[in-house]
Amino acid sequence: MKTLQDCQALDAQDPLRTLRDLFELPGGVTYLDGNSLGALPRAAAARVAAAVHQQWGMGLIRSWNDAGWFDMPGRLGDKIARLIGARPGEVVATDTTSINLYKVLSAALRIVRVDAPGRSVVVSERSNFPTDLYIAQALCQESSLRLHLMDGDDVEAALTPEVAVLMLTHVNYRTGAMHDMAAVTRAAQARGSLVVWDLAHSAGAVPVDLHAAGADFAVGCGYKYLNGGPGAPAFCWVHPRHTDRFWQPLAGWWGHAAPFEFTPEYRPAPGIARYLCGTQPILSMVALECGLDTVLAAEPLGGMAALRAKSLALTDLFIELVEQRCDGHGLGMATPLEHERRGSQLCLTRDVGSYAIVQALIARGVIGDFRAGDGGRYKDILRFGLTPLYTRHQDVWQAVEHLRQVLDTAEWQRPEFNQKHAVT
Amino acid sequence: MKTLQDCQALDAQDPLRTLRDLFELPGGVTYLDGNSLGALPRAAAARVAAAVHQQWGMGLIRSWNDAGWFDMPGRLGDKIARLIGARPGEVVATDTTSINLYKVLSAALRIVRVDAPGRSVVVSERSNFPTDLYIAQALCQESSLRLHLMDGDDVEAALTPEVAVLMLTHVNYRTGAMHDMAAVTRAAQARGSLVVWDLAHSAGAVPVDLHAAGADFAVGCGYKYLNGGPGAPAFCWVHPRHTDRFWQPLAGWWGHAAPFEFTPEYRPAPGIARYLCGTQPILSMVALECGLDTVLAAEPLGGMAALRAKSLALTDLFIELVEQRCDGHGLGMATPLEHERRGSQLCLTRDVGSYAIVQALIARGVIGDFRAGDGGRYKDILRFGLTPLYTRHQDVWQAVEHLRQVLDTAEWQRPEFNQKHAVT
Repeated sequence: MKTLQDCQALDAQDPLRTLRDLFELPGGVTYLDGNSLGALPRAAAARVAAAVHQQWGMGLIRSWNDAGWFDMPGRLGDKIARLIGARPGEVVATDTTSINLYKVLSAALRIVRVDAPGRSVVVSERSNFPTDLYIAQALCQESSLRLHLMDGDDVEAALTPEVAVLMLTHVNYRTGAMHDMAAVTRAAQARGSLVVWDLAHSAGAVPVDLHAAGADFAVGCGYKYLNGGPGAPAFCWVHPRHTDRFWQPLAGWWGHAAPFEFTPEYRPAPGIARYLCGTQPILSMVALECGLDTVLAAEPLGGMAALRAKSLALTDLFIELVEQRCDGHGLGMATPLEHERRGSQLCLTRDVGSYAIVQALIARGVIGDFRAGDGGRYKDILRFGLTPLYTRHQDVWQAVEHLRQVLDTAEWQRPEFNQKHAVT
Repeated sequence: MKTLQDCQALDAQDPLRTLRDLFELPGGVTYLDGNSLGALPRAAAARVAAAVHQQWGMGLIRSWNDAGWFDMPGRLGDKIARLIGARPGEVVATDTTSINLYKVLSAALRIVRVDAPGRSVVVSERSNFPTDLYIAQALCQESSLRLHLMDGDDVEAALTPEVAVLMLTHVNYRTGAMHDMAAVTRAAQARGSLVVWDLAHSAGAVPVDLHAAGADFAVGCGYKYLNGGPGAPAFCWVHPRHTDRFWQPLAGWWGHAAPFEFTPEYRPAPGIARYLCGTQPILSMVALECGLDTVLAAEPLGGMAALRAKSLALTDLFIELVEQRCDGHGLGMATPLEHERRGSQLCLTRDVGSYAIVQALIARGVIGDFRAGDGGRYKDILRFGLTPLYTRHQDVWQAVEHLRQVLDTAEWQRPEFNQKHAVT
């Protein structure tokens, strides 16, 4: 059985151990919610302050050119591209994941309307993150298409000849289960469907290679494993074979070929720039760039492959410690045990008390989160994000130790841990 | 003829003179571009720094509740409501102007589809800000509607029985000309059309009363006269008679009635919350709130009416000084002379050299901007925003004095002022 000292020894040997110094983390907290909001990069305070005071305050309107504000969606997009197997000029950082999904799904449906007009079904998973389903639902209603939600994970069975677009989240927000992007993309395309990937729980968390997978479209989130700060702008990627075929309906001036000609007719920019719409929130973009730099700082240390190795070591350790130390407390494991099916989070289930256990852990400084089940197939989840940039083996040990204590003492049954409020 | 001393005397008597102290403005600069990017509120640096360090860094995910991040779109919306004649709970601060226009125009077209299915035309002005036209163009294409662009300002003539929606910007970005919102709304509604107003150059600049006008929908910008910082989130308002009739297609989880139930089916929130979509950029929202507070600080001093009086005094002064001091230099006035037709900016024209004159002024520290004409009806524009919160009478005097010198000495003909680059 691994001890705290064993875990500290693993941390001392961790080749990525210096990356934690790039972050400011509060004392007394074991933060296992970087899959919901990444931690604060140490560089962010000064860079945001400079953007506020020097760029906005002193530079004023001149900073659009002088401080490179105009170039941020593309410049940040190029940094994201390095993490997801895209090429320079193929990604823009902009808007929100939901809005970017609307753009790429609209574009995908326009392609289908021309290339395969008989196809009328969009397929996704019932356990997908709801906003993806809502956006798909809205677009399907508007276009008289049908949204089919798979209940299980038998993607191939769902790929009937009617399917126009397969829209999946690579790593499930609820269970941490990961699809085989290349295999699923290949299977879907072989059956004539386009594939849209949501990388919200993948970018910066697990290796992604969109080109190797031959994917069609992708979107993702800036504020989880990319550490871009609360509500950081999201990103979108379109395979170059599709980019210039159609424009997307959120056709704002930033996506125009020449926005400062102020012409009344829309003329889409070539390439991914046509997926821009309006003016971007620059202060939040500055923070996002700091976050991206923390992930790219791993490149000389082995990059995403090294982060992945550490992530798997952390989730393996979590599983091992829960099995050894929390035995008999009715905990189940919703996250797949096979490495190739697992993202960078660990999800436990319990028949009762999941919400209260999470609250009791938070009160002890172990911050994970709770995700409600649906009363049926999907159980309530205790969710722990293991962000390899700043999570240590000893953090995992502490988290499981507190979990053990909360269960052993029935501390979670205290009334204050059973009062519900909004959680993210 | 007014002297610099006269202008300084006017500043000394200005009942709003203390409001300038709410801003940090660079030395040696006369900033007349607050209609493009508002100046930095003095409070913003500390508030953004606290949001970065305490809220994000130390509070981490807990700040969604503890720091009130969840409530920001509505809380900031309520502050905006006070400036535009809307009621609490009717406005949300979110996304970009372009995206919000897409939402409200989509909703308007859904209403028309049910209430007046024969109507098939969206009317706007050819001189409207292009992003509004691009969004309308995209939606019209998708819905097989026709977008009709008026070349002049004869709105009533354009209001044929085919018109579904009239979409106008209240104050024209190019000329500073202002529509009579109440009269135009009344005329359009009497002819069976819905009316969408873009308040980008109105909110915080001129008094707006959406309820008194009986408007149907409105959107607006956070980074101009609301001083929200570069790319600050925008806002949207929907009249309560329409809000709950339809949902808008950007149906993300933040617009769901219960986002943390994570149900796979979209159920729109009641009221304006259904116009939210994804997670908002919190750092930029924090700066926007600082900006809103600068405008609301005028409330005890007479609010928008007092700001309007000062704005008109400044634009009157600019016109008077240009007439007196720049005579014979071929300058024309694109901004209407009648008060009730004028926003809070002053727009000059000249047959040649407008771009270079603006550049020469910027080199002298007088920051206005240039807007290209269309080679036809719309001439090139030298644009000066006169933001009553922080612009002084003496700033107007200095700006016109520099303009006079640039013209008298033909300084603008120097090659360095004739090299084009991107401008906002």
